[in-house]
Parts: sequence; C-alpha cells; structure tokens
Amino acid sequence: MKHSGTWKMLTVAVCMALLGCLQAQALQGHVSIILLGATGDLAKKYLWQGLFQLYLDEAGKGYSFSFHGAALTPPQQGQELMAKALESLSCPKDMAPGHCGKLKEQFLQLSQYRQLKTDEHYQTLSKDIEAQVQREGLREAGRIFYFSVPPFAYADIARSINSSCRPGPGAWLRVVLEKPFGHDHRSAQQLATELGSFFQEEEMYRVDHYLGKQAVAQILPFRDQNRKALDGLWNRHHVERVEIIMKETVDAGGRTSFYEEYGVIRDVLQNHLTEILTLVAMELPHNTSSSAAVLEHKLQALRVIQGLQKGNAVLGQYRAYSGQVRQELQKPEGFLSLTPTFAGVLVHMDNLRWEGVPFILMSGKALDERVGYVRILFKNQAYCVQSESHWASEQSRCLPRQIIFYIGHGELDHPAILVSRNLFRPSLPAQGWKEVEDQPGLRLFGRPLSDFYAYSPVRERDAYSILLPRILHCQKESFITTENLLASWVFWTPLLDSVAHEVPRLYPGGTENGHLLDFEFNGGHLSFSQEQPEQLVPGPESVPRPSDFQVLRARYRESPLISAWPEELISKLASDIEATAVQTVRLFGRFHLALSGGSSPIALFQQLATGHYAFPWAHTHLWLVDERCVPLSDPESNFQGLQAHLLQHIRVPYYNIHPMPVHLHQRLCAEEDHGAQTYANEISALVANSSFDLVLLGMGTDGHTASLFPQSPTGLDGEQLVVLTESPFRPHHRMSLSLPLINRAKKVAVLVMGRTKREITMLVSRVGHEPKKWPISGVLPRSGQLVWYMDYEAFLG
Amino acid sequence: MKHSGTWKMLTVAVCMALLGCLQAQALQGHVSIILLGATGDLAKKYLWQGLFQLYLDEAGKGYSFSFHGAALTPPQQGQELMAKALESLSCPKDMAPGHCGKLKEQFLQLSQYRQLKTDEHYQTLSKDIEAQVQREGLREAGRIFYFSVPPFAYADIARSINSSCRPGPGAWLRVVLEKPFGHDHRSAQQLATELGSFFQEEEMYRVDHYLGKQAVAQILPFRDQNRKALDGLWNRHHVERVEIIMKETVDAGGRTSFYEEYGVIRDVLQNHLTEILTLVAMELPHNTSSSAAVLEHKLQALRVIQGLQKGNAVLGQYRAYSGQVRQELQKPEGFLSLTPTFAGVLVHMDNLRWEGVPFILMSGKALDERVGYVRILFKNQAYCVQSESHWASEQSRCLPRQIIFYIGHGELDHPAILVSRNLFRPSLPAQGWKEVEDQPGLRLFGRPLSDFYAYSPVRERDAYSILLPRILHCQKESFITTENLLASWVFWTPLLDSVAHEVPRLYPGGTENGHLLDFEFNGGHLSFSQEQPEQLVPGPESVPRPSDFQVLRARYRESPLISAWPEELISKLASDIEATAVQTVRLFGRFHLALSGGSSPIALFQQLATGHYAFPWAHTHLWLVDERCVPLSDPESNFQGLQAHLLQHIRVPYYNIHPMPVHLHQRLCAEEDHGAQTYANEISALVANSSFDLVLLGMGTDGHTASLFPQSPTGLDGEQLVVLTESPFRPHHRMSLSLPLINRAKKVAVLVMGRTKREITMLVSRVGHEPKKWPISGVLPRSGQLVWYMDYEAFLG
Repeated sequence: MKHSGTWKMLTVAVCMALLGCLQAQALQGHVSIILLGATGDLAKKYLWQGLFQLYLDEAGKGYSFSFHGAALTPPQQGQELMAKALESLSCPKDMAPGHCGKLKEQFLQLSQYRQLKTDEHYQTLSKDIEAQVQREGLREAGRIFYFSVPPFAYADIARSINSSCRPGPGAWLRVVLEKPFGHDHRSAQQLATELGSFFQEEEMYRVDHYLGKQAVAQILPFRDQNRKALDGLWNRHHVERVEIIMKETVDAGGRTSFYEEYGVIRDVLQNHLTEILTLVAMELPHNTSSSAAVLEHKLQALRVIQGLQKGNAVLGQYRAYSGQVRQELQKPEGFLSLTPTFAGVLVHMDNLRWEGVPFILMSGKALDERVGYVRILFKNQAYCVQSESHWASEQSRCLPRQIIFYIGHGELDHPAILVSRNLFRPSLPAQGWKEVEDQPGLRLFGRPLSDFYAYSPVRERDAYSILLPRILHCQKESFITTENLLASWVFWTPLLDSVAHEVPRLYPGGTENGHLLDFEFNGGHLSFSQEQPEQLVPGPESVPRPSDFQVLRARYRESPLISAWPEELISKLASDIEATAVQTVRLFGRFHLALSGGSSPIALFQQLATGHYAFPWAHTHLWLVDERCVPLSDPESNFQGLQAHLLQHIRVPYYNIHPMPVHLHQRLCAEEDHGAQTYANEISALVANSSFDLVLLGMGTDGHTASLFPQSPTGLDGEQLVVLTESPFRPHHRMSLSLPLINRAKKVAVLVMGRTKREITMLVSRVGHEPKKWPISGVLPRSGQLVWYMDYEAFLG
Repeated sequence: MKHSGTWKMLTVAVCMALLGCLQAQALQGHVSIILLGATGDLAKKYLWQGLFQLYLDEAGKGYSFSFHGAALTPPQQGQELMAKALESLSCPKDMAPGHCGKLKEQFLQLSQYRQLKTDEHYQTLSKDIEAQVQREGLREAGRIFYFSVPPFAYADIARSINSSCRPGPGAWLRVVLEKPFGHDHRSAQQLATELGSFFQEEEMYRVDHYLGKQAVAQILPFRDQNRKALDGLWNRHHVERVEIIMKETVDAGGRTSFYEEYGVIRDVLQNHLTEILTLVAMELPHNTSSSAAVLEHKLQALRVIQGLQKGNAVLGQYRAYSGQVRQELQKPEGFLSLTPTFAGVLVHMDNLRWEGVPFILMSGKALDERVGYVRILFKNQAYCVQSESHWASEQSRCLPRQIIFYIGHGELDHPAILVSRNLFRPSLPAQGWKEVEDQPGLRLFGRPLSDFYAYSPVRERDAYSILLPRILHCQKESFITTENLLASWVFWTPLLDSVAHEVPRLYPGGTENGHLLDFEFNGGHLSFSQEQPEQLVPGPESVPRPSDFQVLRARYRESPLISAWPEELISKLASDIEATAVQTVRLFGRFHLALSGGSSPIALFQQLATGHYAFPWAHTHLWLVDERCVPLSDPESNFQGLQAHLLQHIRVPYYNIHPMPVHLHQRLCAEEDHGAQTYANEISALVANSSFDLVLLGMGTDGHTASLFPQSPTGLDGEQLVVLTESPFRPHHRMSLSLPLINRAKKVAVLVMGRTKREITMLVSRVGHEPKKWPISGVLPRSGQLVWYMDYEAFLG
C-alpha cells in the first residue's frame, strides 16, 4: 500500500497525542475555559449553555472551573453584552429549580468577561489564572480556548496563546476550533500548517457539531453493541444502499456573504455528511472506546472512498438565490451565481465490504421539509409466498428492512434510532435511550412507525453539551484530526474543482420542487431523473459545447479519423473496442488486445471497466504494447496502470494476462535473460499469425509510439517481434512491440489527446513513411485497419 | 463454446423441420384431425371446444376438415360417449347465434367416432380418409393425430400410425403429444428415442398448454414491440429479480396416483415455469416470427442456466397429503410421503445479461390463493428528494417499477399485462389487447392498479384454442422440441435426484401457512426464512447433528488438533488464517500463503472469498503447494480451482499471485525447462528465509501430502525446495514444494475432511517420523507451528 509509510507515522502521531492526553488526564485540578467570541451568535445560542451544563455535570468531580468570556470589545461594554448572553441560561428539566438556581449563581460568579486583543492581554490572562490558582491553593489542570471567531482571526489568536498564554508545565492546553477549516485541500493544508506551528496535534479539537448530535454519536456504540446481529449484515451482500441526508427548508438569505463562497458541498457534505459516512462505512475497531483505533479506522475509511468526478454529483440552486446574492452583496443587475444550494452525490467505497453499494449523500436548502437522517436499507432477498395482505411486519422478510439513525426534525421531530422489526431487536444503552411510543398514522420511510423498534434519547441534548465534556475528557474520536480533515479534502477537492463552473439546476423551492431534484444512478454516474425543464443559466466560463456536436469523422494520413471532445472520444473508442471484441470472440472464441501505457488510456480503462457490461473479458487476452524496465509492482510500470484502472475491476482469467517479462532473475531487461524473445515466443504461441486483433497506440510529442523512439536502432524494421529500446525519458530502458509486429495487427487504434499534441499532429499529417524520424509514421497495418482517435484539442488546437 | 458442434447440428435439424413445414404449408386442402382419447377428460373439457373453434376460424380458408374422435371403446358405445361430449360445445360470444348454430351443425356432421385398437383399425381409417378425399374431389393436405391418452399408450399408437396410417406423398403428418414427457432425463430421452423411431422431429408437436395462455403467449411479442424501451432495461444492471409463480388453492386429493409419482417440480416447474423462464431470459431474436430463431434462442437460454443443487430449492408438503396418499393408494398406516407439493427454486443464468439476477420459480398446492404470474421487478437506482407523500406514480422513479405478465386468476381474475407508469407506456397489439379500467381499492404487487398501464385481452381464450391453429399453421415455436425438452431435463434432473430423499417442510394449507413457506436466498443458497417450527418427519438419511456441538480442541501427533462439523471447521480455519494474515501484515507488511489444491480447500476458498472483509489481500502473496503438470487454464490444474473459487472474488495484485511454472516453452514440466528451480528462486527472492507465513496442506488416503507420494525419490529430504514428482493418480506428473521447504514455514495447517480419511487418520496417529512410507508424517515445522484441522467424520469416523 502506498500510504503505508504515512500510515505508520500517523499511528505514531495519534498514539503520542493520546498518550499525552491520558497522562494529562490523570492530573485533575483547576480548568480555565476561555470562550473567544463570547458575545457572538454561536456563544449566545449554544456555547454558554453548554458550558453551564458542563459545570453542572463536572464541577466537584476532581475539577474546579473558571470561565472567561473573551472578545475584542473593551471590558465594560463586553461585560454588559456577556451578561445579556448569560441571562437566558436555562436549567435542565430534571433538576430541582432551587438547586439549579444556586448552581447558576455560582456559575455566573465564576464567569468573567475580558478583552483579548493584544499579547499583553493574553499575558495578563495567564498571570491572572496562575494567581487565582495559587491564591485558592489549587493545581492547574489545563486551559481550554474555544475559538468561536471567524477563521481569519485564528492565526493571531493562536500566536498569542502560544506565545503568551500557555499554562505552566504539567498542565495541558486545548484549543477548540470551529469550521470552516479551509475552502479546499490547499487552503485547509495551509491553515493546518499554520495552526501546527502554534499547537501540537494533541492540543487541537476541531468541532464538527454533527458528531455531537445524539443519533450520530450513537452510530458507533450501536454498531458495537449489536455486533452479533450486524456482523453478517453490514456489507455489500446485504446492504442495498445507504442514504445520508440533511434537508433544510430555510434558504441562505441573510447568510449569502458566507454561503456564496462555500455552497452546500463545503457547508454540509465535506464535513457533516462525510463524518457520518465514515462512521457507517468504517471497519469497526475491536475496541470502540479506543480513540486511536476509532480515528485510525475512520481515516482508513476516508482513504478507500472512490474518487469523485463531475458525473458523480447533481447540483441545484433555489431560484431566489441569485437575487438574494445581488441584494446582500451589492452585485450588478445581471449577476448570476453558480453556487449550489443543493447537491446529491454518489459515493462508492473501494473495498470488499462495500464494493458496489451506493452511498447517497444529499443536502439542500429550500426543500420541502427539514430533516436529517442516515438510512441503511437492506436488500430484499426473500420471496414471501402469501399474498401481501397477510404479511406481518415482524415476520415478513419482504417488507423493507432498514436501520435509521434519525438525526432530528422531520415527522418524528426528535432524534431516534429505528430498526425494522423484521430485522432484529437492537440493544441500546438502557439509561440513555427509551422506546418510542407508537403514533398511529405516522409513516416513516414508507412504513408505519409500528413497523420499527424505535428508540429516542431519554433526555434530548444539544450537540455542544455532548461535545464540551468530551473535550475535557480528551475523547478525541469525537473531533476532526488534521489527517482526517485533509483526507476529507483530498476526497472532495477534485469534485469541487470539476464542478466549479457547472451551472446548477434551478428549483422553485419547497414542495413545488416536485420531482425536479430527484436523481438516479447508472453505474457510477449520477443524473437528474427529469430532463432539464428550462433554459440553462449561462455560466461565466461555460465553454460553447453544444450537446448536439457530433463526433467528427474525417481522414488523417489516409486513414479514418474520429475526433470529438475527450469524453465522447473515449466513449466512442471504448464502444468500438467492445464491438470488435464481441465480434472477434463470436467468430474466433478469443480476442487479443494489446494496450499501451501512459496517461491517455487511463480514462479509456476506466470507461471499459465501468461502462461495458457486454465486454467478453473471460475470452480476452491482454498484452502490453510496451513497458518500462521497472518491477511490475512499481508505480511507474505500465502494467501497474493497467492493473489499477482496469484489471482490478473486471474478471480476466489470470492466464489471459500477459505482462512483459521485464523483470527476470531479479534483473531488469538484461539482454541475457531474453525477455523480449520470451514475450515474442508467447505471442507466437498464442496469437494466430502473431496478428493481434487490436493494438492500441499513443503518439508522443516527438512522434514516438509504443516505446519506439526516433532513431531507434531496434524495432522500426527487421524480423524481431519484441525489442529492448532506449527512451530519451526516464526510465530509459524499455521493452516494446516492434513496428513490424504492430503492423501485423487486424486493427490499430491510435489515441491522441490534449493540446500538447497539436504540433506533432500537424507535422505528422504532412510527412510520408519516415519511421526513423517519426516512428508513428511507420504504423500502417499490412492488411489490417488503422483508425486515429484524436480529441479536438489535439486535432484542432 | 463447447456446444458449438451440437449447435450447428441442431440448427440444421430445426431448419430442415421448418423447411418441411413450410413446403407442406403451401399445399392446402383437406385436413383430417384424429383425436385419440376423444371421450377423456381433457377432450371433454378443452379439446373438442378447441377443435370447434379451429373449425370456425379456419374452415373455408383453403382447408376442409374432418374430425375423428377415437378411443379403444367399441363403435356404438364410443359414439354415444362422444355425442355427449359434443353436446356442450358453445358458440363464441361475438358470433351471431344463428350463424354459429348452423356451423355447429356442420361441425357435428364432420365429426365421427371410430374405434382405434388394432393396426387394421388404423389401415381402415387411412383408407377411409383417402376414399373421402377422392370422393369429394379434394387434395389431402395432412393428418393431425392428437394424443390425449396416457403416456404408456404412446408407443403402440405411434407404431400403428407410422405403419398403417401415414398419409400419401405430398401430405403431412403431425402428432400432438401431451405431457408428461418423461420423469427425468433418462426416461425422457428413452421416450424421445422411441417416438423418434416412428416420427420425424418436424412431425411432433409437444404441447405445454402454458405456451397458449394469453399472457404467456404475449411475452415475446411484448419484448419485440417494446424493444426500444426494454433494450437498456432488460439486464442485470436494471432487473432486481424475476418471479415466475403459479399458486394453487386446490390440493392433490383425487389425483395422488399421478401426483405421488411426479410432485410439484415435475408437474409445474420443469415444464410450465421453465418455458416461461426461457421466454423471459432468452436473447430476443432479430426476427421473432422465425420459429427457428425463437427455438434456437430458447434452447440457448436453457443451456446457460446454472446447475442446481439441493441448496437452491426449498420443498414443502401440505399436511393432509400423506393421508390422502394412504387413502387413495392403499398405503399402510405409518406411510409418509416425501413428494413435495410446494417448491421454491432459485435459478441463475450464467451469462453477462443476467449474471447475479435471481430468477425465483415457485409453485405449490393448498396455498392461500390461486394465481399465476411473471413479475420482473426493476432496481431502484433513484433518490427522490421530496418526502414520500408527494410522490406521483407516473414520475417517481422511487416507486416500484415492474412489468407483470399476469397469467390469470388472483385478484384481477383475468390475464393481463401490467407496466408501472413510471417505467414507460408499452405498445401492445391494438386489436388483441385493451386497456383495463381502474378498480379503485384493488392493489397488485403492493401498488394500486392505477399505478400501472394495464392491458387485458379483448377476448379471453383458453390455451387450446390458441394452440390448435398453431399446429395447423406449423408455428413450432409454441411447442416443445425434443432438444428443448431434453435440455430442460438436463437442468432439472440433478436437482430432482439430489432432493429425492429430502424431507419437505409440512404446511397446514391455505392462509394458515402464514410466513411458514417464505424463503430467502443468500448468495446462491435458498432456505426457509423461519426456523422449522415442528419436529421433522424423520427422513431415511437424516443425520443426527446437534447444533450446540462445540468445536473440539485436542492433540494429534503431539500438535494441536481442531475438530468440528465441516462448516464450523472451515469457518474456524478461515478465521485463523485471516487472523494470522492480519497480524503478519501488521508486523512485516506482507503475508506469504501457500495453498494446496484439491476439493477440501474449495469450501475454504469460498469462505475466504465471501466472508472475510478484513483479509489484507492487497498485501498477501499467494503460492501453490503443488500443481498438476497441465496448462494453468486446464480445469484439472490446482491453480484453476484457486482462480475460480478465490481469485475471481478478491483483489490480489497480479504480481502477488505465484502459480507454479509447470508450463514453459509450450511444454509441461520438462526437466530442461527448470521450472522447479525457477519457482524455488522466486520463493527465495521474495519470501524471507524461504519461510512461508502459512502453508495449507491436505492428506491423502495413502498418507501423501502436497504432491509428495509414498516412496517419492524427490522432495522428502535433501536441499531442493521445489521438486518434480510422480503421482499414482492421473495426471501423473506433478510439481510440489518439498518437505524441507514446508518445514521451514512459520505455520502449517493440515486440513483433513470426510469419512474416507478415517483409516489413514487412525494409522498416521500411531506412526512415527516415516516420510518415505507416509509423507504426511514428515511434516513438522522446524521452528514453526503445526495445527491439524479435521472434521468429525475424518477424526471420529
């Protein structure tokens, strides 16, 4: 595995972080919590209440606390604002009001405002904390800085904390960060590096508050406690699909200055839904209470997600959005935004457990209802003999079988865990969760509530009141590590880049959306179910690319030329190869296909692997046109590209695969090992007349093809079928089919793509048969057919 | 393709038959129809009515008719019985009664009874026909003999027809046969050979009256007329399952003398449901009106059905059945029948179109309703964004999408074709089929009738009135050819044999069955969804097998022994290998596993392939313990077993797979090719200290292991790591790891299974280190661990 080095380093890093945490944990004492942005919205709405709850739960259990609300506002004004925010603190329902009132009084006394603007302010804070601790005869356990501030302020604050407000030896520092954590992989990396210069990994707690939602926080414990029942079910053989959904009714009005820059994928999918995805898909660690194991397995899950392309997502934008942006951001009259407010994304995991199972991630604003859930739908693999009217919901295996982590809102209006009664009776922690009473008439996911074993939390708690104690108790698995964050961006950034200029489908909003946003998948490809009902909004950089632009047929060097945009070209080439394969197998029982390496064919390999179900792979022999003299497992080898992009995904019998023997007797392309002759013998033995059914070639900017370079002393003519050659590019040593062998083929396809090929394409169009100068000009099958496949950039410039 | 020879022959046969048919067809004239068994049940119920209908439809269109009711009964008595049968002939509803009355009069005049018992009777019949034809100045077109008689009478009648009643040159002969067509492949073959000695293939019309059911007869025309819509849908990517169902409420009471011998599989599945299966699954010929093409494609479909085993079927018997048999067949008090009256069978097609799609065939007596249908359910590959209450049945891709050929009875009570409105609007022949009016409240397959485009025949016709004209018009595709019949028996016979002694599950009958007969599939395996709720009827071969029998741990030859029932043993071994693999990869980054061939490891391979998601295949190197000197692609090669049962299902990089080089320079195991040395070099180069992490061995009844046989001159000691050996069994030449190499391994597991190993197991337990006599006794890793895995039969006998 190519990540194995990184892996080991990561594991070490996580272990050290947790070790630090555990050591620190042992030392209880006084904890200072500094809430930066103490008078902001998040603080007012959740954080102060969360801190009060923390105080109620933890004070006295070995800890004492002081709370410092901080902001840039001068002391007096800040004090007033903070007092207002604290006024509305509420007591838990299950606590005697008198007792709680007394505790609230104490909490207010422990909470003070202070202005934190300069390094001196931080130094003073630090001294004050030390003085207080000393004065009261306490030991300092640690300091928590909660960054409830815009990300542009992070760096200055971090610097000041690091330089002027670290606690003394023996006490820990923790900084809590709120998203956004960057805008793409590069900016996230930059931010992480910056923060990393001030804080240790173990000191940082990145909050994704979805990890504190009760139903989400229960996913791993649920999987753990129901291991026995789920063991056989939690895999591609039983799961039909996984839906990870967050629907909103509100729109982005009032928040467009933020939203316009981020959009729904960065706002919801990259973080919240991805976190949930990893919790569902990850291998369950033996010990789920080990933060290190959980984080390691989450990271591993992130790393096996299949890369996304444009075709894996559908995007929408509610119709009023551009108007809101124009108004709020003072944009000119004709301004149209391309920011998506709705996205559906199809994710596949590249491992044996989940191969082929669609994970559907969807979120949007201005939809018909507010609801969030994760739904695992199991396959129906039963036939029920009685007519449907007699089915009993607990017994019939034909009724839908599903597990739902209901995050909140929606018809149910509270968090819940639902398990179809025909699946199994789940086990849940008895103190925390209670069975939900039936609500006749309520249908969820197509079934009455009574069809489910349904549980809800005994006490509903907001995400922050769940997460804050986890910071104190060092439960790092509920937070986003740097590695985890970057792995998520590695996954999302290519999609974000590829759709940056896509025009989202406009939708009216609310129930009026009808079926307009429904989408469906075919193979890995996602598309809206309904045709686009209205004129496209012209995007700023939209390339003129009329959908009715036909594949162009012309001639090049007196042979047929097929030209198109890259996607259509690859599609056409793949279809042509398939058609040839089907016909050849029908006639002769076998198809001998010789493939080139390099980057252009990769898209072709992917297309063949995923889009061509009728391809007779079981009867196809795969040969290499050329190979670099490196071990087959070297990432540079052509075979490795073939393996990663094609062989892994299809079923070709082992003995139909013919890598070039560049690595014999632990040596690479040694003349004495006669590798070229061995390959030639293999071809002669298996391929009738040594005439391949199809040879796929490329063309280099110097006019080379296969690994036959200009002025090559071998391979351009003569009797040899396979030759060792020298490349001007590294690695220099190559093995290649010879021109005479290539020209025995029944069909030769030359694939040329990209602007860089423009010049050589022009040149070669004019030269005659001069293989010494331009080996490609020597390609002319003696009795077979030659077809050129060029994309518009290579052909038209 | 291995059938290609047979194929060509068949095509020729079919063509000749049809050519004969077409030539004959051109010659119209007088047709004599001889109904053998004219006073029997089938004749009374359907055949006379069908012949009357034929007369109404066809008389005057170039044909004249005479109808000869025949039986063994003497003339006068027979005449009376037949007259009774003809009394009840009814006129079609859409015909003027007066006109029909006149025609009925004519039909009765053309219909005469005659006794057919001796060759003379047949000769007389033939002469009478000739005389009549001549007398009336007609040309004889042909004769149709309809065998509505028990199969034991076939041979005599056929002989008499052939010898004494063939028409003269230029006129055709057709014989119409009713099932049963044999009891298994052997008897069907016998019957076919016998009939073939009297009749040409083109002369025989085997009736499966399901092919005349209007909804069934419409399957191919429907597929043809909706080609465009179905082209992309009719395959494994879109079809979730196909259900082919015939449910009956009646039981077998009164018919047990027939039923006890046949049972539900022979009575319904082998014929009716299989015919439907082929119509659904077959490749659609370009020209569906070509009988030859249809028959050829049907046959091809039959030939790609995956073979069935016991595990692909569930069997039931209604509780009253054995009592009925005892009563009707005078069986003794304690007699219990094993004949199934209910069967569910899971069929898979072994081609690219249908790979993995479950075809569920089910039929039974004494069920909750009478209904027959074929249901093609399509996959849901959509996500619908709006909450379900807003879905519109025509637009939502998330509502079930299905096509149903409703054969009859059930809630709808007439034949119909139903297509979900969210799929497409089908095209049907305008004259024959009309849209069904909605019946509010009626739900079919979980949806209101209004969800479907629904069509029913304008005129309901019974199967025989559909099939009889097809005999006249030579439409052979509506009948069962000999090839087709035998192909069906080839498919069903192994299953019938394997379940002959299975005890069917007892069911009460009717709606009381509840979910008792529901069944489900896991991979290819079918089982009842509910545990057996009552004591098994003790079957003749039921083995006592306590479910709580624990895996046994003991010692054998001073090494650990693990013993269990086969399934548990394989499970345990697979888990142990996985655990070793995970640990080894964690420590060293690689896992070197050497595997034996043979039959015992196949179950292990399957277990590893499907049940072990955490197996680090990407880091595992697979080596062979031994190999037969045959090409790798030979079905006999050990590698082929490994490929089919393991490699196809997992993702091991190509270069981590190490088949033994038994096939070099187009030769097998030639000393001069140094294959053994090459493999040894490869091992030395890649495996540290040539010490495999795990070697899996077996043990032969002669005490051999790997391919090291008693008295082998090589491999039992010495320096060589890999050796060529000789086996007493074919193929004799082998390549094998040597004992010294095996004993360098870190772990060696020996898997021994089955009763046949009992003796050698006992023997080897007592001998010392005597590898010359018993090579297995030489297995003792120098510093590694040896573990024996034996099932109870091998260990306890």
